[in-house]
Amino acid sequence: MQRDLTGRLIDEHTMARLNALADLDPALVLDDFTTPEAATALAGAEVIVSGWGCPPIDEAVLAAAPRLRAVIHAAGSVKHHITDACWHRGIQVTSAAWANALPVAEYTVAAVLHANKQLLRIREDYRTRRAPYDWQAAYADAGNYRRTVGIVGASRIGRRVLELLRPHDLDLLLHDPYVEPAEAARLGARSVGLDELCAESAVVSVHAPELPDTHHLIDARRLALMPDGATLVNTSRGSLVDQDALVRELTTGRLDAVIDVTVPEVLPPDSPLYDLPNVVLTPHIAGSLGRELHRMAAAAADELARYTAGQPFAHPVHAEDAHRTA
Amino acid sequence: MQRDLTGRLIDEHTMARLNALADLDPALVLDDFTTPEAATALAGAEVIVSGWGCPPIDEAVLAAAPRLRAVIHAAGSVKHHITDACWHRGIQVTSAAWANALPVAEYTVAAVLHANKQLLRIREDYRTRRAPYDWQAAYADAGNYRRTVGIVGASRIGRRVLELLRPHDLDLLLHDPYVEPAEAARLGARSVGLDELCAESAVVSVHAPELPDTHHLIDARRLALMPDGATLVNTSRGSLVDQDALVRELTTGRLDAVIDVTVPEVLPPDSPLYDLPNVVLTPHIAGSLGRELHRMAAAAADELARYTAGQPFAHPVHAEDAHRTA
Repeated sequence: MQRDLTGRLIDEHTMARLNALADLDPALVLDDFTTPEAATALAGAEVIVSGWGCPPIDEAVLAAAPRLRAVIHAAGSVKHHITDACWHRGIQVTSAAWANALPVAEYTVAAVLHANKQLLRIREDYRTRRAPYDWQAAYADAGNYRRTVGIVGASRIGRRVLELLRPHDLDLLLHDPYVEPAEAARLGARSVGLDELCAESAVVSVHAPELPDTHHLIDARRLALMPDGATLVNTSRGSLVDQDALVRELTTGRLDAVIDVTVPEVLPPDSPLYDLPNVVLTPHIAGSLGRELHRMAAAAADELARYTAGQPFAHPVHAEDAHRTA
Repeated sequence: MQRDLTGRLIDEHTMARLNALADLDPALVLDDFTTPEAATALAGAEVIVSGWGCPPIDEAVLAAAPRLRAVIHAAGSVKHHITDACWHRGIQVTSAAWANALPVAEYTVAAVLHANKQLLRIREDYRTRRAPYDWQAAYADAGNYRRTVGIVGASRIGRRVLELLRPHDLDLLLHDPYVEPAEAARLGARSVGLDELCAESAVVSVHAPELPDTHHLIDARRLALMPDGATLVNTSRGSLVDQDALVRELTTGRLDAVIDVTVPEVLPPDSPLYDLPNVVLTPHIAGSLGRELHRMAAAAADELARYTAGQPFAHPVHAEDAHRTA
């Protein structure tokens, strides 16, 4: 993983657990598998604990690691470092994607509740007026009551968002080509096509993986289907939304947005997304940030404990999952 | 109630229910009990459905309403219109305080999740920088994981906030002089004194009633106990917080705040609370706003249905509650 990440990722408690579970050198952090230090470590390693910035574990790495049996990823997606060679060799893989899903879902749910409440618009409006005003008349359609929220993608994050939205009096829609209506109903949502979801939702939140099929999934036409005053929430990947079309809708003020991911990241300094009052723009921090990293390390320690006890991983990643999800 | 409120409060579906349940004139909305129109209506009324702006139901009103048996309040607090005379006469009272608690709790929970994530600070920071930056290093203590959130007051709203925060990996503290430690534990929180709560919490959220005892409950000393970078959330009443002391802590940037209630409401145009980047200021809209009013009207219709069926109210208000709560 990135060398400066370890101290932030693994808190003292988890480091002590890892030390107790394995023959581990806490000072040994590799961000390059081609160094002499890496060669020595790989020669004896049975388990790699990986994190953000882990280089690809390819044929050459595997050849240098004859005893390697498992990779425990203390982060979400494994697609940048787990290669087909790992699958062919039968390396067991697990990730903390479930742990990384929680903060994204929390960010999203808070954004949905505030969007329905028109919180940031009202904040700006109050700041401008500074005088008595009939807020009930001006925001007669606001509020978290019988408003429609559309979730695009029953991913781990999308499912968690649905779960967290269930206690609220909202009408939940779900679009996911892999989910049957009965399963959507079990998740508390009504299964609909993506066009219908966009046309009916006061908030549309995108939780689909970045795949060739999902490029510009939310395109200009679908943005145009969204009702006036609706909010688009994107915490997945920037490429899923036609950003130029979105900027046009945001600039007229017809739509609002909460955007944690963009193309490119970081946006150029002249991007209107920085300054539009109807946009909350954050720099890809919906996922694990700060102490939320500790949860991913704790998840890795839990998996290492299972491995050393001869138990299967609780959150295994299989080759077919790796190809279909983020 | 306020005359212009009815159309916003009662949607068509609920108005149809009310009409079916009672001999009701939908066009008759009173905001003054001393008019001839009011005298006629009161002479025959068995039930008053009240809302925001209902004048006090005092001795004179009761004398004009010999058949009155119940007041169904389609809003939260009854203390502005239910007088001691109502209690002496044995008038049955119910309110939609539970329904009004839900949006306040939603606003609060979203504020807590975003405060822990430092969302608005990061948004401002990204807007200023517009360049690559090590967010993990800069916000190493951010995140909704094992952070301490302190709830002041196990009111209806405070309890709902605790319930909605339970799915998250937070350490919840509760201060309420009327709640035993065992009950706090059942609510998922640890019971502590208010000083300890302020000193330990990354977010302090106030949900106590406005009473002489709670004036400036969060005073300069307790604000000073709060850790650097902590957030105060106030959706209760402005008087519970020493606002001048809070402004001083916010102006230095030591604390952040999410404030829906102030003294006075509306704030004077030169209040620094409008412009501080570390403050979310809203104009007393955390409670029912827009379509959330419909939930309170639906609650009133539910209670009217119980009344006409000879059943007790599901959410009765008793004299002793009215004196102790908001």
